[in-house]
Amino acid sequence: MTVEIIAVGGYEEVGKNMTAVKVGDEVVIFDMGIHLDRLSIHEDTDIDRMHSLDLIERGVIPDDTLMKDVDGKVKGIVFTHGHLDHIGAVAKLAHRYDAPLIATPYTIALIERTIKGERKFSVSNPLTTLNPGAKINLSKNITLEFVQSTHSIPQSVIAALHTPDGIIVYANDFKFDNHQKISPPPDYNRLKELGRKGVLSLIVETTRALDYHEVKTYSEKVAKIILEDIMREPLKEKKGMIVTTFSSHVERIQAIADIAKTSDREILFLGRSMERFCGLAESMGILELPPNASILGNPKSVNKALARAEEKREDYLLVATGHQGEPDALLPRIANGKTPFQIRSGDNVVISAPVIPNPTNAANRHIMERRLASDGARIYSNAHVSGHAGREDHRDFLRMLKPSHIIPAHGDLTMITAYAELAEEEGYRIGNNIHILRNGQAQVFNGGIS
Amino acid sequence: MTVEIIAVGGYEEVGKNMTAVKVGDEVVIFDMGIHLDRLSIHEDTDIDRMHSLDLIERGVIPDDTLMKDVDGKVKGIVFTHGHLDHIGAVAKLAHRYDAPLIATPYTIALIERTIKGERKFSVSNPLTTLNPGAKINLSKNITLEFVQSTHSIPQSVIAALHTPDGIIVYANDFKFDNHQKISPPPDYNRLKELGRKGVLSLIVETTRALDYHEVKTYSEKVAKIILEDIMREPLKEKKGMIVTTFSSHVERIQAIADIAKTSDREILFLGRSMERFCGLAESMGILELPPNASILGNPKSVNKALARAEEKREDYLLVATGHQGEPDALLPRIANGKTPFQIRSGDNVVISAPVIPNPTNAANRHIMERRLASDGARIYSNAHVSGHAGREDHRDFLRMLKPSHIIPAHGDLTMITAYAELAEEEGYRIGNNIHILRNGQAQVFNGGIS
Amino acid sequence: MTVEIIAVGGYEEVGKNMTAVKVGDEVVIFDMGIHLDRLSIHEDTDIDRMHSLDLIERGVIPDDTLMKDVDGKVKGIVFTHGHLDHIGAVAKLAHRYDAPLIATPYTIALIERTIKGERKFSVSNPLTTLNPGAKINLSKNITLEFVQSTHSIPQSVIAALHTPDGIIVYANDFKFDNHQKISPPPDYNRLKELGRKGVLSLIVETTRALDYHEVKTYSEKVAKIILEDIMREPLKEKKGMIVTTFSSHVERIQAIADIAKTSDREILFLGRSMERFCGLAESMGILELPPNASILGNPKSVNKALARAEEKREDYLLVATGHQGEPDALLPRIANGKTPFQIRSGDNVVISAPVIPNPTNAANRHIMERRLASDGARIYSNAHVSGHAGREDHRDFLRMLKPSHIIPAHGDLTMITAYAELAEEEGYRIGNNIHILRNGQAQVFNGGIS
Amino acid sequence: MTVEIIAVGGYEEVGKNMTAVKVGDEVVIFDMGIHLDRLSIHEDTDIDRMHSLDLIERGVIPDDTLMKDVDGKVKGIVFTHGHLDHIGAVAKLAHRYDAPLIATPYTIALIERTIKGERKFSVSNPLTTLNPGAKINLSKNITLEFVQSTHSIPQSVIAALHTPDGIIVYANDFKFDNHQKISPPPDYNRLKELGRKGVLSLIVETTRALDYHEVKTYSEKVAKIILEDIMREPLKEKKGMIVTTFSSHVERIQAIADIAKTSDREILFLGRSMERFCGLAESMGILELPPNASILGNPKSVNKALARAEEKREDYLLVATGHQGEPDALLPRIANGKTPFQIRSGDNVVISAPVIPNPTNAANRHIMERRLASDGARIYSNAHVSGHAGREDHRDFLRMLKPSHIIPAHGDLTMITAYAELAEEEGYRIGNNIHILRNGQAQVFNGGIS
Repeated sequence: MTVEIIAVGGYEEVGKNMTAVKVGDEVVIFDMGIHLDRLSIHEDTDIDRMHSLDLIERGVIPDDTLMKDVDGKVKGIVFTHGHLDHIGAVAKLAHRYDAPLIATPYTIALIERTIKGERKFSVSNPLTTLNPGAKINLSKNITLEFVQSTHSIPQSVIAALHTPDGIIVYANDFKFDNHQKISPPPDYNRLKELGRKGVLSLIVETTRALDYHEVKTYSEKVAKIILEDIMREPLKEKKGMIVTTFSSHVERIQAIADIAKTSDREILFLGRSMERFCGLAESMGILELPPNASILGNPKSVNKALARAEEKREDYLLVATGHQGEPDALLPRIANGKTPFQIRSGDNVVISAPVIPNPTNAANRHIMERRLASDGARIYSNAHVSGHAGREDHRDFLRMLKPSHIIPAHGDLTMITAYAELAEEEGYRIGNNIHILRNGQAQVFNGGIS
Repeated sequence: MTVEIIAVGGYEEVGKNMTAVKVGDEVVIFDMGIHLDRLSIHEDTDIDRMHSLDLIERGVIPDDTLMKDVDGKVKGIVFTHGHLDHIGAVAKLAHRYDAPLIATPYTIALIERTIKGERKFSVSNPLTTLNPGAKINLSKNITLEFVQSTHSIPQSVIAALHTPDGIIVYANDFKFDNHQKISPPPDYNRLKELGRKGVLSLIVETTRALDYHEVKTYSEKVAKIILEDIMREPLKEKKGMIVTTFSSHVERIQAIADIAKTSDREILFLGRSMERFCGLAESMGILELPPNASILGNPKSVNKALARAEEKREDYLLVATGHQGEPDALLPRIANGKTPFQIRSGDNVVISAPVIPNPTNAANRHIMERRLASDGARIYSNAHVSGHAGREDHRDFLRMLKPSHIIPAHGDLTMITAYAELAEEEGYRIGNNIHILRNGQAQVFNGGIS
Repeated sequence: MTVEIIAVGGYEEVGKNMTAVKVGDEVVIFDMGIHLDRLSIHEDTDIDRMHSLDLIERGVIPDDTLMKDVDGKVKGIVFTHGHLDHIGAVAKLAHRYDAPLIATPYTIALIERTIKGERKFSVSNPLTTLNPGAKINLSKNITLEFVQSTHSIPQSVIAALHTPDGIIVYANDFKFDNHQKISPPPDYNRLKELGRKGVLSLIVETTRALDYHEVKTYSEKVAKIILEDIMREPLKEKKGMIVTTFSSHVERIQAIADIAKTSDREILFLGRSMERFCGLAESMGILELPPNASILGNPKSVNKALARAEEKREDYLLVATGHQGEPDALLPRIANGKTPFQIRSGDNVVISAPVIPNPTNAANRHIMERRLASDGARIYSNAHVSGHAGREDHRDFLRMLKPSHIIPAHGDLTMITAYAELAEEEGYRIGNNIHILRNGQAQVFNGGIS
Repeated sequence: MTVEIIAVGGYEEVGKNMTAVKVGDEVVIFDMGIHLDRLSIHEDTDIDRMHSLDLIERGVIPDDTLMKDVDGKVKGIVFTHGHLDHIGAVAKLAHRYDAPLIATPYTIALIERTIKGERKFSVSNPLTTLNPGAKINLSKNITLEFVQSTHSIPQSVIAALHTPDGIIVYANDFKFDNHQKISPPPDYNRLKELGRKGVLSLIVETTRALDYHEVKTYSEKVAKIILEDIMREPLKEKKGMIVTTFSSHVERIQAIADIAKTSDREILFLGRSMERFCGLAESMGILELPPNASILGNPKSVNKALARAEEKREDYLLVATGHQGEPDALLPRIANGKTPFQIRSGDNVVISAPVIPNPTNAANRHIMERRLASDGARIYSNAHVSGHAGREDHRDFLRMLKPSHIIPAHGDLTMITAYAELAEEEGYRIGNNIHILRNGQAQVFNGGIS
């Protein structure tokens, strides 16, 4: 039987992930993401109303037109977690395939919302939930398994596709975090078992492969200690206080809420995407908020809440969107004086997010911080740990899985080759069993496990 | 007699230069510049119509309100060259002083234009031209001398203020370039003579003090060789060709014109500030353009010229504003499809300017280059040499002048202290005879030359 | 009464700290450190046998010859912790002063050892121990207080010198760590009380003032979590295992021991300075090691232990000196094949220390890591958190103490001015109440607290 | 006919270049270089006496043991220029092949010297000189052509191997410099002709592919202007003066001599490798020195010359080895006080070389500069332009040659992939017609030119 890995998107960038695995004449697709950076290049891009071909041309979503030359029946479209660079193009692309969308419950719920927001296409693929640790037969030959994993969004999994020629592992994205509150540790034993059973190929993210400094990614427990140390005093001060972080980072949100509930401040989670990710997580019992916390996404409610907070700033903790300084998000709008809440001297702002490296983010964040500071805010920046595996985590992963082949993914060429060099240290060889693919290229395995 | 140097602006930033020198009860002011970076922080700043106090509050122009506490008669306002960070606030501030504006002819002409463009204040100070090498008595005690120098705009000088207590040298900005076409080399002999006569204090720019690599700044002759090597083939290709550089950098503009006139292309200098600086320079006989060159600033004429160039792109060389990717300048507008000229595959774009370091410039330039490249342009970036003295140039300068005191200026604290460390290598000492001033601080010299 | 702060050493470098505080006609000296970097410039420097004047000329120890012009009686020489850049020159300089050496018990013990090792001078100053939280009268006018603090060596304190004109606080070095096992948290309440009583001047370290990323320094608790996550699996593997870290960092050593004692490995602390710092700490009850741990400094014992470990590598955890790759330290010697212990494929090496920034360290460390890796070791590098206050810690500190004046210390000019800019954000002003001193300069306070 | 490119060495590093091209059953080898960096990792490496297998194991020379599996007759070993990373292993490897060594006259002369210095092997391959622009038939099927090129050593060529399946171009190393004194400009017309005839594959250096700033490498004419501006005043001062640069960079040496001969100083070229490269170049009429110049390599003569220069320093210009601060080279030994010449205050040292990026060089250079400066020397560092093609030079090269396939060489993976991305911008594709090889891998072309 021939197994073929088709690199549809995400092999030349951090974004718009999509990979197809063809096993005999059946196909399983992993991820349909968007590439948000590209939007800042073309000013007039209104995603919700645009056709997929236009978005493909602008590099915003994966170019899946090559799939029409792939002679095989698509048996499932699998999403291993709910970040937009993995699910964001589902409403533009999924309807072309007669196959179910498969993900963990939280991811499925996020996909549902994405589909509902779509204005151009109607998407009616069946939705199938699969829990971490569970398996599902996609065909006589193919079984999909979700292995418990950790990342920076709940219910992230590593996918294992059992085929007659060996297992294909899709690990995009993951970190090895043994100390999260919401997610149990990764199932290392199962990963080792898969390694013993025989992994034909690993498809693996490489976003932190260039970091030679923090070689094992710090746990979210570290982020919580850092935030506790930062937030302790500001929570007591009679001043305004704002925290901003990734809306989808529910583990971090949980930590912030847990730290904040030791004070008397009312916690307001504000912004559309806060509602999207945290509202959903709370309703599904993933996120546990104290009784005096609210999540508000509707602009009117947000403004009303901000007006209340403006009245008595020391009584509130605002958790807002806008950590990259994106002009339309909440914190930048506050900084720019466009909301009822005014930054005043001594207010504390905690940015629990790095600058996602890109000149536009750097500029937006710089301008936001300058404005906040010129109004007198004290800024605690970069209180963050990564959600992606570091180099030594990757090394551990390779030693568990012992894959016959490796396909580095989800990175630009510098990341992918930095990962490849790591794999070479572990005895693999670029061009032999490490395969560097560009978007649109495919790797065929004929022999099964070596 | 007491000499006092008052650091009004430019001692905490690259921008808004202004220094006052009080000699007994008479005062000479050097420069009235603006700080363009600050404009990007506050979105709604319309300089031409704003009051100086508002601009001062936003940090856009020097805070000269402290001058009301300076008990002395202002005898002259001196500008050593025509860059906006040195003359840009003249229309906002000069009218408060009953004193002439003194500069070289080209600088005076630029000042006149600035004053004419002002909408808020009327400025009627007399204008006095002083040529490089010439002197003028400002009072019985004070004589101003302009020493021939080089920079990145024509007719830049180093000012020497002869006082009973010694000479005050104001060198802000300068480079040591022995190979310019328009400007003769700096008058090193006169600088050494001043050193022998006795320099009480040097006030000196520090913008490149942090560059430990290119320790003597390269000559413009180097820029010309680089541009020749870059432009030779593109000039021959049947493709569009655009060069962008600093409009005020007439020496560079001259080099570009000289290179281009070996081809048959018609040269179009396009953009408002091209007209301002180059039109003026040509009318004054400073810039010599070939017969088939035109300078167009008026938006309508620019568009018409671009439409012609669009028709027959291989017949034109466009020299356009917009090297920083500023959204309103010409090249970014071309890149964004907002002009009649479309970038086509194979067009050549030469950016003869560095990214002026600032996150907003980095983002704008990045977006512009991405757009140009995605339309198929070939980009030659950073074909540039600096207009500011390097560390070893500064060392030579100190050895010529042997000042008793040094006041580093025109830089942020990292630049000013990097310069101070260089001066310490030459036997000076911070806190003894190197004086680090912040905006608004003053240094008093009682003893004359030591 | 006149108070004068004399910057003897450490105001132009990270190293050779020494400051004198003159109160009326009495003097208190803080620190007598060495500058280890300078040793690599001159190859033939044998400190133990050299005269202080030679060491002064080479920049290895503070130039205290200026003290002969300080007209005052030295009442005490105070050491706030036991790092070599604070106590390392004591044997070269202290004998010139007729005054007791005052420090916490652990620091005093380290000073005693330094004095015993000296070959050139005999030092007989009385030794006085002062505990954190305790006070001692140095004269009728001057009382010395040690405030509980945290750093990367046990029993570090912040010194407060009570004078008739206000308190002088000497905080060099410190971090704010609320989660150490050995050291209680800093006594924030006492620091705030001092602020209320009136701090005339703060003398403060600036080593991390340039880090705009990790703005509050991470706790040692974070280092322990990182090390646990790194060490867990290697401890179980049937492979050799070496950890290297700062010998004086007893808190870190404690963490390593606590993590290791969950395994059956015998822990060997190896190297001369391990014995110096950890042996002493254990004998004083500061460091608590499991029963199967030994500390060996004598080269013969070290070699014998290494030979045993070579026999059965999976039974030992080696904790070795040499984290900077210094050619004479243990780990580099192991890497270079100069000991009975050979690195074998799969051995794990944990480097719990950053590269101390300096080209020689970078080269040594690079060569060591290359050698270790070429023998098959897996290297976990940079598992470390800093022992120095970050920018926001400094801001908190300033808000607690509210000093009238600030003298930044223990850094090169870039660090000292980066701190100064932070202090300016808090309302201070360089040249007014922030005083940038160079080695050998002094700042006089006449007015007392403003 | 099958063409196979075998990447023997230099495909994972800058160093130890060696490539074999198999055409049918005949083989042509390009380069046999050494990798000098590796020597600093193993301290006890004495190249001249070591066996090739030991050197291969340590990574110092290419692992050509794989050539025993290459079934073909070696018809020639070709060297395109005389740098050690291209010819340095000739004495260790060439004797295994029954084939002539082919190079330009200067390169051949350097190879002869290398062979004479060898202590382990005797090398008796015939030596064949081939001039730039000339051709030689290596067999019925294969013709070798040397195309005139420029680099940083005289008589560098680009090799074109004419085969029945198309031309193989070997361009390793080169720059496009139109303004050298010794070497004529590259023969662009011939390169374009080759492109029209049909290039099957280009094998091309990538050392500067990561430089996104200086996109067209500056000409040596620029270096000469920089050096003139730097050297003018020091040549006149009554002080010592030393210049250090690459001994093999005869064009630069020529420029230094031409600048210096305007003064009365006697020029002494000092150091073993100065004699090797410059002595040879002078004897062959390549380098033209003024009558008062001497080249001395023998340590005794060097010392005697230095003693003379010490007596009357203002009468000499020393041109010395040691630009990387290598402890055994001349300038570092002078800096370390190990020669009869003492650095004195005011002496001028011009370093016409960059730090070759590597932590050991950085440390050595840092220490040397610190020592020179502490003795009072004024240092002009980094007065240099590169000898390697920049990104836009590479783009021009691709447009001239239009090769069917590209094999990037002479770089680590980051350089090779940075080049590959450039080639993708020109329409090539990694994995399709851009082939990333690792040392020991081969690329087979069956189809001829596409």
